[in-house]
Amino acid sequence: MAHITTSVEYGIHGLLWLVDNDGRALSSREIAELQGVSPSFLAKIFPKLEKAGIVMASEGVRGGYRLAMPANEISFLEIVDAIEGEKPLFDCQNVRERCALFSKGAPAWATDGHCAIHAVMLQAEKAMREALASHTLGDAFKRFSRKVPDSFNDELSRWLGERTASRTARVGKPARDAPT
Amino acid sequence: MAHITTSVEYGIHGLLWLVDNDGRALSSREIAELQGVSPSFLAKIFPKLEKAGIVMASEGVRGGYRLAMPANEISFLEIVDAIEGEKPLFDCQNVRERCALFSKGAPAWATDGHCAIHAVMLQAEKAMREALASHTLGDAFKRFSRKVPDSFNDELSRWLGERTASRTARVGKPARDAPT
Repeated sequence: MAHITTSVEYGIHGLLWLVDNDGRALSSREIAELQGVSPSFLAKIFPKLEKAGIVMASEGVRGGYRLAMPANEISFLEIVDAIEGEKPLFDCQNVRERCALFSKGAPAWATDGHCAIHAVMLQAEKAMREALASHTLGDAFKRFSRKVPDSFNDELSRWLGERTASRTARVGKPARDAPT
Repeated sequence: MAHITTSVEYGIHGLLWLVDNDGRALSSREIAELQGVSPSFLAKIFPKLEKAGIVMASEGVRGGYRLAMPANEISFLEIVDAIEGEKPLFDCQNVRERCALFSKGAPAWATDGHCAIHAVMLQAEKAMREALASHTLGDAFKRFSRKVPDSFNDELSRWLGERTASRTARVGKPARDAPT
């Protein structure tokens, strides 16, 4: 399995539907349907993004998820950390302690500070995290939206309008659509 | 599981015993015993390092593994790639193709070039790989050996001497020790 999993891919694609959308809240089911991914899978991802303060959820007939801050302030690193949690690139087992010649236990000179191997891995992880931190959801949205023809935006508005109409028509059963 | 696994940790620790050791060949069992790790696990790692041209194996009573090139020319990246094989940081599923609004299949504007999300992940992977490429086995050895007291080197020589004596004493059964 790749280090940055499909959950992150689904999460970021899902978040893109919340950028620059006139503040409209979308349920995770709507996001999943729009993106063509598993609604039950996405329903596990968005609560993590909410917990990390990336999205906020509201209830009611017009409820759902909205971005909790401007897209330009949400870095890829924050999204990855929110979804993946603590997951080091390299999980040092401190093999240096196990040398057969340390019959009386590993001496201090062998275990002080970071292992030289672990130190390199931490640098590689830092470089990876810095790259993720230097890109925002807003950047990705700009890159996507540059390619999108007007006809697509019209179709999207129609799709969302139909969903809103369907929600409001079901008076008395608002909770089914909101927020997940 | 971390992206860079325990196999890499064992492999690099194992390789360190082959640096600056007067060209002595060590079997993977000897390396494993010296390092206090599973011999059967290490026996799966060293053939990968041999295939990648990082170590070379020889047979016979004094056979085993030696470095195939100077330690300063073996980068962490080469070792990681040799052991882990092709393993991307992020395995793009091309979710962008699945939008519900693409009823007639994804249009070219949506699928041309790298996905904006994948592009960021590739940059993060590149940064990680560059960091790994900028460190060598020789660097790690220097960092370890700076801390090693003379008494440890004496003990190591004695341990290796005993192993060599044990190999040569078993005349007629050299293949058992060499090379793995």
